[in-house]
Order: sequence, then C-alpha cells, then structure tokens
Amino acid sequence: MLHDPNRVYVFDTTLRDGEQVPGCQLATPEKIEIAKALEALGVDVIEAGFPISSPGDFQSVVEISKVLKDPIVCALTRANQQDIDAAVGALKYAKRPRIHTGIGSSDMHIKYKFNSTREEILERAVAAVRYAKKFVEDIEFFAEDAGRADNVFLAQMIEAVIAAGATVVNIPDTNGYCLPELYGSKIRFLKENVKNIDQAIISVHCHNDLGLATANSLSGLINGARQVECTINGIGERAGNTALEEVTMILKTHHDLNLHTNINSKHFRAISDMVSDLMHMPVQPNKAIVGQNAFAHSSGIHQDGFLKHRENYEIIKPEDVGVDSADIVLTARSGRHALKHHIERLGHQLERAVLNDVYERFLILADEKGHINDEDVILLVSTVEKKTLV
Amino acid sequence: MLHDPNRVYVFDTTLRDGEQVPGCQLATPEKIEIAKALEALGVDVIEAGFPISSPGDFQSVVEISKVLKDPIVCALTRANQQDIDAAVGALKYAKRPRIHTGIGSSDMHIKYKFNSTREEILERAVAAVRYAKKFVEDIEFFAEDAGRADNVFLAQMIEAVIAAGATVVNIPDTNGYCLPELYGSKIRFLKENVKNIDQAIISVHCHNDLGLATANSLSGLINGARQVECTINGIGERAGNTALEEVTMILKTHHDLNLHTNINSKHFRAISDMVSDLMHMPVQPNKAIVGQNAFAHSSGIHQDGFLKHRENYEIIKPEDVGVDSADIVLTARSGRHALKHHIERLGHQLERAVLNDVYERFLILADEKGHINDEDVILLVSTVEKKTLV
Repeated sequence: MLHDPNRVYVFDTTLRDGEQVPGCQLATPEKIEIAKALEALGVDVIEAGFPISSPGDFQSVVEISKVLKDPIVCALTRANQQDIDAAVGALKYAKRPRIHTGIGSSDMHIKYKFNSTREEILERAVAAVRYAKKFVEDIEFFAEDAGRADNVFLAQMIEAVIAAGATVVNIPDTNGYCLPELYGSKIRFLKENVKNIDQAIISVHCHNDLGLATANSLSGLINGARQVECTINGIGERAGNTALEEVTMILKTHHDLNLHTNINSKHFRAISDMVSDLMHMPVQPNKAIVGQNAFAHSSGIHQDGFLKHRENYEIIKPEDVGVDSADIVLTARSGRHALKHHIERLGHQLERAVLNDVYERFLILADEKGHINDEDVILLVSTVEKKTLV
Repeated sequence: MLHDPNRVYVFDTTLRDGEQVPGCQLATPEKIEIAKALEALGVDVIEAGFPISSPGDFQSVVEISKVLKDPIVCALTRANQQDIDAAVGALKYAKRPRIHTGIGSSDMHIKYKFNSTREEILERAVAAVRYAKKFVEDIEFFAEDAGRADNVFLAQMIEAVIAAGATVVNIPDTNGYCLPELYGSKIRFLKENVKNIDQAIISVHCHNDLGLATANSLSGLINGARQVECTINGIGERAGNTALEEVTMILKTHHDLNLHTNINSKHFRAISDMVSDLMHMPVQPNKAIVGQNAFAHSSGIHQDGFLKHRENYEIIKPEDVGVDSADIVLTARSGRHALKHHIERLGHQLERAVLNDVYERFLILADEKGHINDEDVILLVSTVEKKTLV
C-alpha cells in the first residue's frame, strides 16, 4: 500500500480537533484561509470538520472541499449512518475525500459511555466502515481511547475494520494518558498481531494532558505508524494535540530516524501566526519551534558560546522555520561578548578597558530595566566616549 | 547516599534558568516571593541565581538564602575560582547551601567554545569541584551539552568529578537535541559504566527545543536519575526547560513507575499564575496541567462521555492541581447532553421535544457567536418557554 516505507503522512486536524476549542470557532472564510495555508505547507490530509455537528461546520467542509487541490479532505463522523450521510454530503466536491469514523475501544468507554459490550461495539464499528465504504473509498477508522484499551481486543477491532475496508487505522490516546514506551509498544503490538495490518496505514493521534503528545507520537512512528495527526501550535481540546511543527521538525532534525514528510518547515512561523490570530489562541513565548523566544539566547554563558560558533547552542536554523535570525537579547545575565556584539553591530569599536567600564554600567542598568535595547546601548557607549574625550 | 531509592528530588531553576529569559528579570522582593512559594510547593532544591553575573543577582541569592528554611539553596558558577568565590559569598546565609559548577563536555563545546582539549577540560572540571568543596559540602557538577557528548568521555568526566567531591552530577541536554531513547540510554550508560556513580545523585536537565523536555526527563528518571531540574510553566531560555508541573504530575499519575516526589500538586495553578504574572510570561491556554483550557471539554462527543462518567475523558482531577472543577464549555461543537447539563444547572427542566428545539437554535447561535454563555442559555430557554405559553 505504501510506496515509500519511510514516508510519514501528516494529517492536520487544526480545523476539527483544534477548532472545537472554546473561543477558537471560525467562520467559513477563515477556515478556507487556513486550509489553503495548510495545503501550501505540504500537509497530506486536512480534517476539515465534523459535518453532523452543526450547519456551519457542514458548510465549511463543503467550501474547503471546493478549494483544495492536492490534500485529502477528511470529515469526522461517529459510527452511525446519519453522521456518515452528513459527511458524504459535505465531501461532495472533494477531489480526494476521506471519511473518518470510529467508536470507543476501551472498556471504560464501552461500559460507561456506550453502556454496551465489546461484541456489540465491534459490530457497530464494522457496520460503520462498511456503510461509509459504499460512498467513499478512503476510510479512516478511529478506536477512541485506544491508549487505555486492552491490546488484544484492540487488535481484534483493528483487524475487523481493515477487513471491512478501512484504509487507515487511528489509535488515539484520547486522554493523553500514555507514556511514550507504553504507547509505542501498543503500536508495535498491532504491527505484530493484526494479520492484515499491511493493508492499512497506522495513524497516531495523541493528546498533551501530561505534556507527552509529541513524544508519544514519535514513539508510535518509530514503532511502525506512518501517519501522524496534529495541529498547528498544538491547539486542541484541553491541553491540546501533538504540535505539527514539533513532530515534523524532530523527523527533519534527526536523520538517523530515516523518516520523512512532505512538510516545508519554512512556513512554520507564518502559519503559526495566522492560526494564533484567527483563533485568538496566543502562543507562549517559550513554545518550541514557533514561540517568540524559541531562538533567543540570553544568558552570558550561552551568548558567548553562540557568538563563537552557532551550533554550540543552536540545533535548528531559525531560517529553516521561517524566522529571520536568532536573537542575542541583552539582559543582566548577558556577558561581555554579547554586549560587544551589539556595540559593534551598532557601529562602535571600544578598547578592552573601555568595554569593561561600559559593561559594569550596563549590568547596573540591566538590573534596573530588565531588557536593554539598542537606544540604551548607544547611550551607554556615548557616555563613555564623552568621558574619554574629557 | 539515598535512603529511599524511589524518591525523586525536584530541583527548581525558575529563578535562574527561567529568570535569565528576555523580559523575565525580577527584582529581589519578587524573587523572594517566588522562592517562598516554591518552598511551600515542596521543592527540594531552589537554584536562586548566578551570583557572578550581576550585583543584583548576587544580592538576590543572599536574600533568598536568608528567608528559606527547608530547601537547599543553590548558586550557579562556571568552572573558575572567581565565579565560585562569588557563589560562596552569596550563599553565606543559606542553611543548606549548594554550589552548582561545571563546564562543557561535548567535543563541539570543548573545541569551539573553550578552544581546548578533553584533557584540559577534565582538569578544569576537577579543579573547580575541588575548589568549591573547600567551602561547601554539597557540590553539583554540570557537564554542559552532555546530550551531544561522547558517552565514554562523559563517563570519564563524571567519575573524576565524583572522586573530587561532587554529590550530584547533572547531565544537561543543553540544546534540547536528544530523543527520549537516546537521552535515557545515556543515563543508563553512566549508571552502568561510572564506577563511583552510587556516591552521587544523577540529575536530568532538559531543554524543550523539539518539544521533548518532559519526555526526556522522564526517560532519564526511568533509567536511574533521581533529581529532575525544571521550572514553573516550563519557562527558560529559548523554548524553555522541563515544566515542573508536567514531570511531577506524570510520576503522580503513573503509579506503575514507582517514583515519587515531595511536591504538593494542589499549589500548581496558584504558583503558575504567580510566575506568569511576575515574569510577564503568558501561559498558553492549551498548556498541559496549568493552561486555562487544560480541563475544558468542548466537543459534543467528549462532553457527552464526560457527563456520563468523568474518567471517560479525565485522567487528572482538576482539584488535584488547584483548579476548581472541569469546565463543560458550550460551542457549536457541543451536543445536546452538554446543553441540557447547563440548562439544568441554571434551574430549568425541559421536555425532550422542547430541548431539541432549543438545541437547534442553540447551534445556529453558536455558529454565529462562537462561545455561548449563561445569559445566552437563559435567553434561549426563555424564548421557548414563552412560545410554549402561546
């Protein structure tokens, strides 16, 4: 089924799992804007919405289907005919439609959410895939709460839905409960125990409740999954989903993993800003890859090393993720080298003794002010130059 | 050396690695406020600053030392006498002082930052530990950029500094380069190859450049480290450090790991807010554990399951991290169950047919407005009640 065994497909759910977050709801034109940006980024699959959930969401899937050329457009459903009918209707104009249907797989969900049994749930799962397959060739099945599901039952469910026509099987850690080793071993178990597993792509869908979404997704990919479900800036319900920019940048940085995607990382900063603005979801300054400070070096030890040799403190080139260049920020923790760097950048040359003098006063000012800007540096230098003249 | 082999020591560096971030600089009274909150949280070690770096930072270490009773107070130095002298001076009033000294351990740092050789660096490392040991019993050594260091040389360095008197050995992934498996195997390698390793505690110090700081720290702990270095909200240079609340909550949630700390997680939300406010570092809504949305359920599928049985979608009780209760937020992705929950909470009972009618109009309004608040719900219900009367 896969031509290149090392190709990882990127499934973006910013417009579905992301958009359902409080305060993130978008109008259709905004969704189209993001969908086009995701297409330009090189995403393989765009989950455009959950058509049965509201008339507005249905319409958005219709309009997004019309404008996208390359990516697969995917619509979410529960495992019932009404939901699937709505998805089929919404995907009418999609060039490459996919229906994403599924049901709970953990005993907790089966018992307390569906008030049902494993046997009945298995039947409903198979029936939903068979029904969807009548309309659309590409069917993804999600085994909700797979992170807490019994592996033997999960394998049985996955085997049955693949036999019923599922082309992608999604193993969500719905509650962000798993540790990387546990999640990876679950994927490996399915690879080794589901007879027809080679007829489908395994997809990882992780939540960040314990701060492990990226690590769990990575562990799943290392153990055989070849699709990763993620969102821009890691937005999503509760603590969010796997951040697209993190998981794909790991694959790009660690060549030893021998896994690659179609993502053009140079778009990261721009699409991060777009999603943050349109969805009113601020990105914290210390967010990996796309945070405002992600490439800002501030301590004296770091700045010194950085100025001597960038790779001392930089494993990602800022320009590779669409950021102009790494910052050397001046604070009371900055060393002489950083101050000298900025003084020279501003066109001044100081002798060593004079630099030391400026540095002493710089530290006092920085303790008072916090952040020292270019004007402050010029002022500090000019005072010394005046004193030197006198 | 360790009485309880499963006890993990929590080393907080919010006031050092966190405070050196652009815009995060604090005055001494603010640092004292945070230090006291960290003490109440149950942190074992507080890194209070880098005394040589500026007069203000020196003074903060002095004042923090005076006020803290229980935690070890730690001061950072480079591997030279001048830095160590400053740290000794700043720690004068500490009841339990620790000096944290160290030097680069990767060939990249040795060559491009220190323009030196492995032999010379090893000598400087040992000399620094010996010198610091003259003044303070508790010496932590950091092997900077250990994440990219050759394991055999790193083991040699660690053995030498332990022999020279180091009580804690810190193995930083300074650049956030490591993957969890790589980082964990590095800790395991040291456990297995450093002869005197049982005379010291191994400490993990991870950065979040690839979004893996928490996972890497966890991998280090699973493989034998017993101190974790972290910050509140994961603040720190570039993409920040391991978030204290994430790594300690993982240990609390996953009893199977059989690792425990002294942290009182009920303080998390309050100390997160304090650090965010004082340091002007916003926490994104989808931040794990302490984000505004971390416990907000919004999709219809999730809300329905959540209302039936909390554990369907909740692996952490909000009250365990100091949050009042999980939210069921109303948006166009909410289902009938969620709407009914809020209608009843607001004191109304509706028949099924009436509820269906309200729900249809709720969806239209939610598509328009985004977030539906209590007033909107009351208005929706009152309109129906009026219609019913007519």
